[in-house]
Amino acid sequence: MSRVTGKRLTAKGEATRRRIVAAAAQLMYEQGITATTMEDVRVATGASSSQIYHYFADKQALLLAVIDYQTEAVLDLQAPHLDHLDTITGLRAWRDLLVENQKRLQCRGGCPIGTLGSQTAETNPEARLAVASGYLRWENAIRAGLTTMHSRGNLTGNPDDLALALLTALQGGLLMTQIHRNVRPLEVALDTVLDHIASLSGGSRE
Amino acid sequence: MSRVTGKRLTAKGEATRRRIVAAAAQLMYEQGITATTMEDVRVATGASSSQIYHYFADKQALLLAVIDYQTEAVLDLQAPHLDHLDTITGLRAWRDLLVENQKRLQCRGGCPIGTLGSQTAETNPEARLAVASGYLRWENAIRAGLTTMHSRGNLTGNPDDLALALLTALQGGLLMTQIHRNVRPLEVALDTVLDHIASLSGGSRE
Repeated sequence: MSRVTGKRLTAKGEATRRRIVAAAAQLMYEQGITATTMEDVRVATGASSSQIYHYFADKQALLLAVIDYQTEAVLDLQAPHLDHLDTITGLRAWRDLLVENQKRLQCRGGCPIGTLGSQTAETNPEARLAVASGYLRWENAIRAGLTTMHSRGNLTGNPDDLALALLTALQGGLLMTQIHRNVRPLEVALDTVLDHIASLSGGSRE
Repeated sequence: MSRVTGKRLTAKGEATRRRIVAAAAQLMYEQGITATTMEDVRVATGASSSQIYHYFADKQALLLAVIDYQTEAVLDLQAPHLDHLDTITGLRAWRDLLVENQKRLQCRGGCPIGTLGSQTAETNPEARLAVASGYLRWENAIRAGLTTMHSRGNLTGNPDDLALALLTALQGGLLMTQIHRNVRPLEVALDTVLDHIASLSGGSRE
Protein backbone atom coordinates (compact mmCIF):
# COMPACT_ATOMS: atom_id res chain seq x y z
CA MET A 1 0.00 0.00 0.00
CA SER A 2 1.34 3.39 -0.88
CA ARG A 3 2.23 5.18 2.32
CA VAL A 4 1.41 8.62 0.99
CA THR A 5 -1.78 8.09 -0.99
CA GLY A 6 -3.15 5.33 1.22
CA LYS A 7 -4.31 3.57 -1.97
CA ARG A 8 -3.41 -0.04 -2.76
CA LEU A 9 -1.70 0.06 -6.16
CA THR A 10 -1.20 -2.59 -8.83
CA ALA A 11 2.39 -3.29 -9.93
CA LYS A 12 1.77 -1.12 -12.99
CA GLY A 13 0.25 1.60 -10.83
CA GLU A 14 3.22 1.44 -8.46
CA ALA A 15 5.60 1.81 -11.43
CA THR A 16 3.69 4.82 -12.77
CA ARG A 17 3.61 6.43 -9.34
CA ARG A 18 7.35 5.87 -8.95
CA ARG A 19 8.03 7.37 -12.39
CA ILE A 20 6.11 10.52 -11.38
CA VAL A 21 8.00 10.83 -8.09
CA ALA A 22 11.37 10.30 -9.81
CA ALA A 23 10.58 13.03 -12.37
CA ALA A 24 9.41 15.42 -9.64
CA ALA A 25 12.54 14.68 -7.58
CA GLN A 26 14.77 15.47 -10.57
CA LEU A 27 12.92 18.72 -11.37
CA MET A 28 12.94 19.90 -7.74
CA TYR A 29 16.64 19.03 -7.52
CA GLU A 30 17.45 21.03 -10.67
CA GLN A 31 15.18 24.07 -10.37
CA GLY A 32 13.95 24.10 -6.78
CA ILE A 33 10.62 23.19 -5.20
CA THR A 34 8.82 26.52 -5.67
CA ALA A 35 9.68 26.71 -9.37
CA THR A 36 8.47 23.14 -10.02
CA THR A 37 4.78 22.94 -10.97
CA MET A 38 2.51 19.92 -11.29
CA GLU A 39 2.35 20.80 -15.02
CA ASP A 40 6.19 20.55 -15.26
CA VAL A 41 5.99 17.08 -13.72
CA ARG A 42 3.18 16.10 -16.10
CA VAL A 43 5.19 17.21 -19.15
CA ALA A 44 8.37 15.47 -17.91
CA THR A 45 6.59 12.14 -17.42
CA GLY A 46 4.27 12.35 -20.45
CA ALA A 47 1.38 11.45 -18.12
CA SER A 48 -2.06 13.03 -18.18
CA SER A 49 -3.23 15.45 -15.50
CA SER A 50 -5.81 12.95 -14.30
CA GLN A 51 -3.05 10.30 -13.92
CA ILE A 52 -0.89 12.67 -11.86
CA TYR A 53 -3.80 13.69 -9.62
CA HIS A 54 -4.87 10.05 -9.28
CA TYR A 55 -1.65 9.42 -7.37
CA PHE A 56 -1.08 12.82 -5.74
CA ALA A 57 -3.89 15.04 -4.52
CA ASP A 58 -1.68 18.10 -4.72
CA LYS A 59 1.90 19.32 -4.91
CA GLN A 60 2.32 18.90 -1.15
CA ALA A 61 1.57 15.15 -1.37
CA LEU A 62 4.05 14.88 -4.25
CA LEU A 63 6.71 16.82 -2.29
CA LEU A 64 6.36 14.49 0.71
CA ALA A 65 6.79 11.51 -1.64
CA VAL A 66 9.90 13.18 -3.10
CA ILE A 67 11.42 13.58 0.39
CA ASP A 68 10.84 9.85 1.05
CA TYR A 69 12.25 8.99 -2.38
CA GLN A 70 15.43 11.05 -1.84
CA THR A 71 15.93 9.60 1.64
CA GLU A 72 15.78 6.09 0.17
CA ALA A 73 18.13 7.09 -2.67
CA VAL A 74 20.70 8.56 -0.26
CA LEU A 75 20.59 5.48 2.00
CA ASP A 76 20.67 3.07 -0.98
CA LEU A 77 23.77 4.74 -2.38
CA GLN A 78 25.58 4.23 0.93
CA ALA A 79 24.04 0.85 1.78
CA PRO A 80 27.13 -1.25 0.95
CA HIS A 81 29.12 0.86 3.44
CA LEU A 82 26.65 1.53 6.25
CA ASP A 83 27.09 -1.97 7.71
CA HIS A 84 30.84 -1.41 8.04
CA LEU A 85 31.01 1.84 9.99
CA ASP A 86 32.29 -0.03 13.05
CA THR A 87 35.98 0.26 12.11
CA ILE A 88 38.18 3.21 11.16
CA THR A 89 38.89 1.44 7.85
CA GLY A 90 35.15 1.12 7.16
CA LEU A 91 34.53 4.74 8.09
CA ARG A 92 37.31 5.92 5.74
CA ALA A 93 35.92 3.77 2.90
CA TRP A 94 32.49 5.37 3.42
CA ARG A 95 34.11 8.82 3.35
CA ASP A 96 35.81 7.91 0.05
CA LEU A 97 32.48 6.83 -1.46
CA LEU A 98 30.87 10.15 -0.49
CA VAL A 99 33.75 12.18 -1.93
CA GLU A 100 33.88 10.13 -5.15
CA ASN A 101 30.15 10.59 -5.56
CA GLN A 102 30.55 14.38 -5.42
CA LYS A 103 33.38 14.21 -7.98
CA ARG A 104 31.12 12.17 -10.28
CA LEU A 105 28.41 14.83 -9.89
CA GLN A 106 30.96 17.61 -10.49
CA CYS A 107 30.02 18.94 -7.05
CA ARG A 108 26.51 19.79 -8.24
CA GLY A 109 23.27 19.37 -6.33
CA GLY A 110 24.40 19.25 -2.70
CA CYS A 111 22.67 16.83 -0.36
CA PRO A 112 19.30 15.80 -1.89
CA ILE A 113 17.73 15.73 1.59
CA GLY A 114 19.41 18.84 3.00
CA THR A 115 18.47 20.89 -0.05
CA LEU A 116 14.80 19.96 0.34
CA GLY A 117 15.05 20.77 4.05
CA SER A 118 16.62 24.17 3.51
CA GLN A 119 13.88 25.13 1.03
CA THR A 120 10.95 24.08 3.23
CA ALA A 121 12.08 24.59 6.84
CA GLU A 122 10.41 27.98 7.38
CA THR A 123 7.36 27.63 5.17
CA ASN A 124 6.23 24.00 5.29
CA PRO A 125 6.26 22.31 8.73
CA GLU A 126 5.06 18.96 7.35
CA ALA A 127 7.93 18.85 4.84
CA ARG A 128 10.41 19.96 7.53
CA LEU A 129 9.32 17.05 9.75
CA ALA A 130 9.65 14.61 6.82
CA VAL A 131 13.21 15.84 6.26
CA ALA A 132 13.93 15.55 10.00
CA SER A 133 12.74 11.96 9.85
CA GLY A 134 15.05 11.27 6.88
CA TYR A 135 17.97 12.77 8.82
CA LEU A 136 17.19 10.54 11.82
CA ARG A 137 17.24 7.39 9.68
CA TRP A 138 20.64 8.43 8.33
CA GLU A 139 21.98 9.34 11.78
CA ASN A 140 20.78 6.00 13.20
CA ALA A 141 22.64 4.10 10.47
CA ILE A 142 25.88 5.95 11.30
CA ARG A 143 25.34 5.59 15.05
CA ALA A 144 24.96 1.80 14.81
CA GLY A 145 28.57 1.39 13.63
CA LEU A 146 30.03 3.75 16.23
CA THR A 147 28.00 2.12 19.01
CA THR A 148 29.45 -1.27 18.03
CA MET A 149 32.98 0.19 18.16
CA HIS A 150 32.22 1.67 21.55
CA SER A 151 30.77 -1.54 22.98
CA ARG A 152 33.83 -3.48 21.75
CA GLY A 153 35.98 -1.01 23.70
CA ASN A 154 37.47 0.50 20.53
CA LEU A 155 36.04 4.00 20.99
CA THR A 156 36.22 6.12 24.12
CA GLY A 157 33.99 9.01 22.91
CA ASN A 158 30.19 9.28 23.01
CA PRO A 159 28.96 7.37 19.92
CA ASP A 160 25.67 9.34 19.79
CA ASP A 161 27.50 12.66 19.63
CA LEU A 162 30.11 11.39 17.18
CA ALA A 163 27.41 10.03 14.83
CA LEU A 164 25.65 13.39 14.84
CA ALA A 165 29.00 15.17 14.35
CA LEU A 166 29.67 13.01 11.27
CA LEU A 167 26.27 13.82 9.78
CA THR A 168 26.60 17.56 10.46
CA ALA A 169 30.11 17.50 8.92
CA LEU A 170 28.65 15.73 5.91
CA GLN A 171 25.80 18.25 5.58
CA GLY A 172 28.07 21.28 5.92
CA GLY A 173 30.70 19.71 3.67
CA LEU A 174 28.14 18.93 0.95
CA LEU A 175 26.69 22.45 1.04
CA MET A 176 30.08 24.16 0.85
CA THR A 177 31.26 21.71 -1.83
CA GLN A 178 28.18 22.62 -3.85
CA ILE A 179 28.77 26.37 -3.42
CA HIS A 180 32.52 26.25 -4.16
CA ARG A 181 32.23 23.50 -6.82
CA ASN A 182 35.17 21.83 -5.10
CA VAL A 183 35.31 18.66 -2.99
CA ARG A 184 37.79 20.04 -0.47
CA PRO A 185 35.14 21.24 2.05
CA LEU A 186 33.58 17.77 2.12
CA GLU A 187 36.96 16.04 2.40
CA VAL A 188 38.21 18.31 5.19
CA ALA A 189 34.90 18.20 7.09
CA LEU A 190 34.76 14.40 7.16
CA ASP A 191 38.51 13.89 7.67
CA THR A 192 38.55 16.20 10.69
CA VAL A 193 35.77 14.29 12.47
CA LEU A 194 37.25 10.93 11.38
CA ASP A 195 40.69 11.98 12.69
CA HIS A 196 39.02 12.86 15.97
CA ILE A 197 37.25 9.48 16.09
CA ALA A 198 40.55 7.75 15.26
CA SER A 199 42.24 9.62 18.14
CA LEU A 200 39.50 8.29 20.44
CA SER A 201 39.94 4.73 19.19
CA GLY A 202 43.50 4.35 20.40
CA GLY A 203 44.86 4.10 16.86
CA SER A 204 42.96 0.84 16.31
CA ARG A 205 42.08 -0.03 12.70
CA GLU A 206 39.42 -2.41 14.01
CA MET B 1 29.57 54.60 -4.40
CA SER B 2 27.16 51.71 -4.31
CA ARG B 3 28.99 48.59 -5.42
CA VAL B 4 25.95 47.05 -7.07
CA THR B 5 24.33 49.96 -8.90
CA GLY B 6 27.52 51.85 -9.65
CA LYS B 7 25.63 55.04 -8.74
CA ARG B 8 26.93 57.54 -6.23
CA LEU B 9 24.17 57.95 -3.64
CA THR B 10 23.36 60.76 -1.23
CA ALA B 11 23.13 59.85 2.47
CA LYS B 12 19.36 59.80 2.11
CA GLY B 13 19.62 57.67 -1.03
CA GLU B 14 21.96 55.26 0.75
CA ALA B 15 19.47 54.97 3.63
CA THR B 16 16.58 54.28 1.25
CA ARG B 17 18.63 51.70 -0.64
CA ARG B 18 19.57 50.00 2.62
CA ARG B 19 15.94 49.93 3.75
CA ILE B 20 14.98 48.18 0.50
CA VAL B 21 17.77 45.61 0.86
CA ALA B 22 16.88 44.94 4.51
CA ALA B 23 13.22 44.36 3.60
CA ALA B 24 14.17 42.07 0.70
CA ALA B 25 16.57 40.14 2.97
CA GLN B 26 13.83 39.61 5.53
CA LEU B 27 11.28 38.48 2.92
CA MET B 28 13.74 36.10 1.23
CA TYR B 29 14.70 34.72 4.65
CA GLU B 30 11.05 34.10 5.58
CA GLN B 31 9.52 32.89 2.33
CA GLY B 32 12.45 32.03 0.04
CA ILE B 33 13.96 33.81 -2.94
CA THR B 34 11.66 32.45 -5.66
CA ALA B 35 8.50 33.37 -3.75
CA THR B 36 9.71 36.94 -3.10
CA THR B 37 8.70 39.42 -5.82
CA MET B 38 9.80 43.00 -6.40
CA GLU B 39 6.18 43.94 -5.64
CA ASP B 40 6.44 42.23 -2.20
CA VAL B 41 9.53 44.30 -1.48
CA ARG B 42 7.79 47.47 -2.65
CA VAL B 43 4.81 46.82 -0.37
CA ALA B 44 7.05 45.95 2.61
CA THR B 45 9.04 49.19 2.28
CA GLY B 46 6.18 51.47 1.26
CA ALA B 47 8.36 52.72 -1.59
CA SER B 48 7.17 53.35 -5.14
CA SER B 49 8.09 51.07 -8.03
CA SER B 50 10.21 53.80 -9.59
CA GLN B 51 12.14 54.16 -6.31
CA ILE B 52 12.83 50.43 -6.15
CA TYR B 53 13.95 50.28 -9.79
CA HIS B 54 16.04 53.41 -9.32
CA TYR B 55 18.28 51.41 -6.97
CA PHE B 56 17.94 47.91 -8.42
CA ALA B 57 17.55 47.24 -12.13
CA ASP B 58 15.97 43.86 -11.45
CA LYS B 59 15.47 41.14 -8.83
CA GLN B 60 18.91 39.70 -9.59
CA ALA B 61 20.61 42.98 -8.63
CA LEU B 62 18.55 43.07 -5.44
CA LEU B 63 19.43 39.42 -4.63
CA LEU B 64 23.16 40.13 -4.99
CA ALA B 65 22.76 43.10 -2.63
CA VAL B 66 20.92 40.82 -0.17
CA ILE B 67 23.80 38.30 -0.23
CA ASP B 68 26.25 41.12 0.58
CA TYR B 69 23.93 42.42 3.29
CA GLN B 70 23.58 39.01 4.96
CA THR B 71 27.34 38.40 4.80
CA GLU B 72 27.91 41.70 6.59
CA ALA B 73 25.19 40.89 9.14
CA VAL B 74 26.68 37.46 9.91
CA LEU B 75 30.19 38.91 10.31
CA ASP B 76 28.94 41.88 12.37
CA LEU B 77 27.14 39.56 14.79
CA GLN B 78 30.37 37.65 15.41
CA ALA B 79 32.71 40.65 15.20
CA PRO B 80 33.38 40.93 18.96
CA HIS B 81 34.57 37.30 18.93
CA LEU B 82 36.38 36.94 15.61
CA ASP B 83 39.49 38.73 16.91
CA HIS B 84 39.80 36.23 19.77
CA LEU B 85 39.77 32.91 17.92
CA ASP B 86 43.46 32.38 18.73
CA THR B 87 42.83 30.63 22.06
CA ILE B 88 40.68 27.65 23.05
CA THR B 89 38.86 29.95 25.49
CA GLY B 90 38.12 32.42 22.69
CA LEU B 91 36.94 29.66 20.36
CA ARG B 92 34.58 28.28 23.03
CA ALA B 93 33.18 31.78 23.69
CA TRP B 94 32.48 32.18 19.95
CA ARG B 95 30.77 28.77 19.96
CA ASP B 96 28.59 29.90 22.88
CA LEU B 97 27.58 33.07 21.01
CA LEU B 98 26.53 31.04 17.96
CA VAL B 99 24.51 28.60 20.07
CA GLU B 100 22.86 31.38 22.11
CA ASN B 101 21.94 33.16 18.89
CA GLN B 102 20.12 30.06 17.63
CA LYS B 103 18.28 29.74 20.96
CA ARG B 104 17.22 33.38 20.66
CA LEU B 105 15.92 32.67 17.14
CA GLN B 106 14.16 29.50 18.38
CA CYS B 107 16.30 27.58 15.87
CA ARG B 108 14.55 29.28 12.95
CA GLY B 109 16.10 30.51 9.74
CA GLY B 110 19.33 28.53 9.52
CA CYS B 111 22.44 30.30 8.24
CA PRO B 112 21.38 33.44 6.32
CA ILE B 113 24.23 32.89 3.83
CA GLY B 114 23.96 29.10 3.51
CA THR B 115 20.21 29.32 2.91
CA LEU B 116 20.71 31.78 0.05
CA GLY B 117 23.45 29.53 -1.33
CA SER B 118 21.35 26.38 -1.20
CA GLN B 119 18.51 28.11 -3.07
CA THR B 120 20.66 29.52 -5.88
CA ALA B 121 23.56 27.08 -6.35
CA GLU B 122 22.11 25.21 -9.33
CA THR B 123 20.16 27.96 -11.03
CA ASN B 124 22.05 31.23 -10.55
CA PRO B 125 25.86 31.07 -11.00
CA GLU B 126 26.33 34.76 -10.18
CA ALA B 127 24.52 34.37 -6.85
CA ARG B 128 26.42 31.14 -6.11
CA LEU B 129 29.72 32.98 -6.59
CA ALA B 130 28.56 35.83 -4.34
CA VAL B 131 27.74 33.28 -1.61
CA ALA B 132 31.12 31.58 -2.16
CA SER B 133 32.78 34.95 -1.67
CA GLY B 134 30.82 35.47 1.59
CA TYR B 135 31.94 32.03 2.81
CA LEU B 136 35.57 32.89 2.03
CA ARG B 137 35.42 36.10 4.09
CA TRP B 138 34.01 34.09 7.01
CA GLU B 139 36.58 31.30 6.61
CA ASN B 140 39.43 33.84 6.47
CA ALA B 141 38.28 35.41 9.73
CA ILE B 142 38.30 32.00 11.45
CA ARG B 143 41.61 31.02 9.86
CA ALA B 144 43.35 34.14 11.18
CA GLY B 145 42.90 33.04 14.80
CA LEU B 146 43.99 29.45 14.19
CA THR B 147 47.02 30.60 12.19
CA THR B 148 48.09 32.76 15.14
CA MET B 149 47.73 29.77 17.50
CA HIS B 150 49.78 27.68 15.09
CA SER B 151 52.54 30.27 14.69
CA ARG B 152 52.77 30.62 18.49
CA GLY B 153 53.35 26.84 18.67
CA ASN B 154 49.98 26.24 20.36
CA LEU B 155 48.41 24.18 17.57
CA THR B 156 49.97 21.21 15.79
CA GLY B 157 47.26 20.69 13.13
CA ASN B 158 46.85 22.47 9.79
CA PRO B 159 45.12 25.80 10.56
CA ASP B 160 43.71 26.10 7.01
CA ASP B 161 41.99 22.71 7.26
CA LEU B 162 40.79 23.31 10.82
CA ALA B 163 39.28 26.69 9.89
CA LEU B 164 37.39 25.10 7.02
CA ALA B 165 36.34 22.21 9.30
CA LEU B 166 34.90 24.72 11.79
CA LEU B 167 32.92 26.52 9.08
CA THR B 168 31.57 23.25 7.60
CA ALA B 169 30.60 22.10 11.12
CA LEU B 170 28.84 25.42 11.64
CA GLN B 171 27.00 25.15 8.31
CA GLY B 172 25.90 21.56 8.87
CA GLY B 173 25.05 22.28 12.49
CA LEU B 174 22.92 25.32 11.58
CA LEU B 175 21.04 23.41 8.88
CA MET B 176 20.27 20.43 11.12
CA THR B 177 19.39 22.74 14.03
CA GLN B 178 16.92 24.50 11.72
CA ILE B 179 15.39 21.21 10.55
CA HIS B 180 15.15 19.64 14.03
CA ARG B 181 14.30 22.93 15.81
CA ASN B 182 16.89 21.92 18.40
CA VAL B 183 20.35 23.38 19.10
CA ARG B 184 21.98 20.00 19.79
CA PRO B 185 23.25 19.47 16.20
CA LEU B 186 25.00 22.86 16.26
CA GLU B 187 26.43 22.27 19.75
CA VAL B 188 27.72 18.79 18.93
CA ALA B 189 29.09 19.81 15.52
CA LEU B 190 31.12 22.71 16.94
CA ASP B 191 32.15 20.91 20.14
CA THR B 192 33.51 17.94 18.20
CA VAL B 193 35.77 20.09 16.03
CA LEU B 194 36.74 22.27 19.02
CA ASP B 195 37.59 19.15 21.06
CA HIS B 196 39.78 18.04 18.18
CA ILE B 197 41.49 21.44 18.03
CA ALA B 198 41.98 21.34 21.81
CA SER B 199 43.58 17.89 21.50
CA LEU B 200 46.02 19.37 18.94
CA SER B 201 46.83 22.31 21.20
CA GLY B 202 48.36 20.22 23.95
CA GLY B 203 45.64 21.15 26.39
CA SER B 204 46.74 24.80 26.32
CA ARG B 205 44.06 27.38 27.16
CA GLU B 206 46.17 30.00 25.39
